[in-house]
Amino acid sequence: MKKILSNLLVVGSVAYDSIQTPFAKTARTLGGSGSYFSLSAKNFVKPSLVGVVGNDFKAIDIKILKDIADISGLEHQKGKTFHWAGKYSFDLNSRETLKTELGVFADFKPTLSPVHSLAEYVFLGNIHPKLQLDVLHQVKSASRRTKFVGLDTMNFWIESALPDLKKVLKEVDVLIINDSEARQLSKEHNLLKAAKKITTLMSARGASSNMQEGAPLARVLVIKRGEYGLLMFSSVSPSFKKRGLGGVRIFNLPGFPLEDAVDPTGAGDSFAGGFMGYLTKTNNTSWENLKLACVAGSVMGSFCVEQLGTKGLIGVTEKNIRNRLKEFKKLVNY
Amino acid sequence: MKKILSNLLVVGSVAYDSIQTPFAKTARTLGGSGSYFSLSAKNFVKPSLVGVVGNDFKAIDIKILKDIADISGLEHQKGKTFHWAGKYSFDLNSRETLKTELGVFADFKPTLSPVHSLAEYVFLGNIHPKLQLDVLHQVKSASRRTKFVGLDTMNFWIESALPDLKKVLKEVDVLIINDSEARQLSKEHNLLKAAKKITTLMSARGASSNMQEGAPLARVLVIKRGEYGLLMFSSVSPSFKKRGLGGVRIFNLPGFPLEDAVDPTGAGDSFAGGFMGYLTKTNNTSWENLKLACVAGSVMGSFCVEQLGTKGLIGVTEKNIRNRLKEFKKLVNY
Repeated sequence: MKKILSNLLVVGSVAYDSIQTPFAKTARTLGGSGSYFSLSAKNFVKPSLVGVVGNDFKAIDIKILKDIADISGLEHQKGKTFHWAGKYSFDLNSRETLKTELGVFADFKPTLSPVHSLAEYVFLGNIHPKLQLDVLHQVKSASRRTKFVGLDTMNFWIESALPDLKKVLKEVDVLIINDSEARQLSKEHNLLKAAKKITTLMSARGASSNMQEGAPLARVLVIKRGEYGLLMFSSVSPSFKKRGLGGVRIFNLPGFPLEDAVDPTGAGDSFAGGFMGYLTKTNNTSWENLKLACVAGSVMGSFCVEQLGTKGLIGVTEKNIRNRLKEFKKLVNY
Repeated sequence: MKKILSNLLVVGSVAYDSIQTPFAKTARTLGGSGSYFSLSAKNFVKPSLVGVVGNDFKAIDIKILKDIADISGLEHQKGKTFHWAGKYSFDLNSRETLKTELGVFADFKPTLSPVHSLAEYVFLGNIHPKLQLDVLHQVKSASRRTKFVGLDTMNFWIESALPDLKKVLKEVDVLIINDSEARQLSKEHNLLKAAKKITTLMSARGASSNMQEGAPLARVLVIKRGEYGLLMFSSVSPSFKKRGLGGVRIFNLPGFPLEDAVDPTGAGDSFAGGFMGYLTKTNNTSWENLKLACVAGSVMGSFCVEQLGTKGLIGVTEKNIRNRLKEFKKLVNY
């Protein structure tokens, strides 16, 4: 019998970031989607992180990741670790990429070990859709357990690899993207219309049972809107169209109001880590629990942006999270 | 004994609007803050509308207003009715004013009849702060009943009549403005910081009792954010600072998601009408009930923008409102 190291697997980048904000800057500090995801998810369950680093990757950063994740799937390759440099505008709402040095990430082709492919919850970070699909097939061929698979992507892949992206979309349960990506992917400005189009591109697994309260859901789309929070949609069955809002379920969560947002880097990955971590911990993908996962993810994103780089996530305590979850409920429920 | 015609009084403009959107246009159709407010509020209580029209004001528009409001305070003056013409951008997020012909509105100086000054709930629409203060003093000198007074204003008065605006702010219970006005008034970009500054400019009436659940609140600020919904704040007592989020109570309501927004004209006034109408009907200004008033106001705003001009409000039924209130709860509560 193989021992499962973690029930949550993330495949993503581990990088060094050089960030400039109007208030501060960093040079080559720990970053990458896989790092932010894991630093966030670990507050719910210890994830398995699959990625690649170069031989410039520091022992201190290995230690940080090892403390919070199973990193037996983190490859070490000869060459440089992926380096990203970017500069934010005064109001933090836009950023300019100054450098993208892929290094060892350019040839990253994840091969899962048998123990990693047994995870029931999988998050496919922002890499080429072909690689995402390849990882997904490794997972699916290794195990027949029902899995809940999350996907990230970006404008670059929507533009340059749309047919591959559409293939992977058909096999995942939740897509987590931002509003501009949703508009680009659907060619619709209105987010409701965009959501209806996008969810039809997705897996219909389990759709027949989705009319029942508490049943697991597929075809879930989370559209992140930065400081304005998020919209989550699920369009699951033709018969569902008879119910409110033109046939989709919608959950609208505002952003957690912050007095001091310092650095948005990694906020989306922190959201995904909290969202998937919460689902894995509770092992429940009903609509009501997906809402709670959105809240958990948003709280983790809010801690992330309050400090530079990964500092906000590294410093956060269980009590901080518990308090903010309580505040969130007061803030939005009526 | 004087008979109270309505417990909700609104002082505002009654106008003709010529609206151009990317989809449709109107020429000289019924508009103005007082009209939108009343058409919205009437779904909760029949309001008294105080305003002025010229001798070009049509009998059919008189009939529309008379059916939904007490218009014994609507003056008829020799001259033209206030006319506004504007054109919206393709995504409806910005507009250009093409014409502002004040007509009889230029010399509007509201004098309340004794029966109107007895209303317990008062909304001071967007007119010169000096006139707003004058109306408020007429109301306050006529009656000792506790009143809940709402205020609207705009960038023009913040720029040109700030000392007068500050005077009236000290005497009202709720200020309803949009995000850019809040930033302009507070000189703070962050809305939490803006809210803290603005609420200190407001009346502290009833502040001592505000720690108790269900107690009436003063110093309430509603910041509207268009399609992103609203933030409501209350900063009521120094001892309150010990409680979450740096001493202010906050409620964050997202916008009701719409597939087809057609015309934003009057959405803010429809919000105010639903908000004040709901409070007047329920006669309860506790924090929890103010949240429900925000929901009622947002629902009315959502009907308003779905059709051109006042059409969306005129066509709405009690059942439409009830259904949307139910959908809103599903959409945001978790």
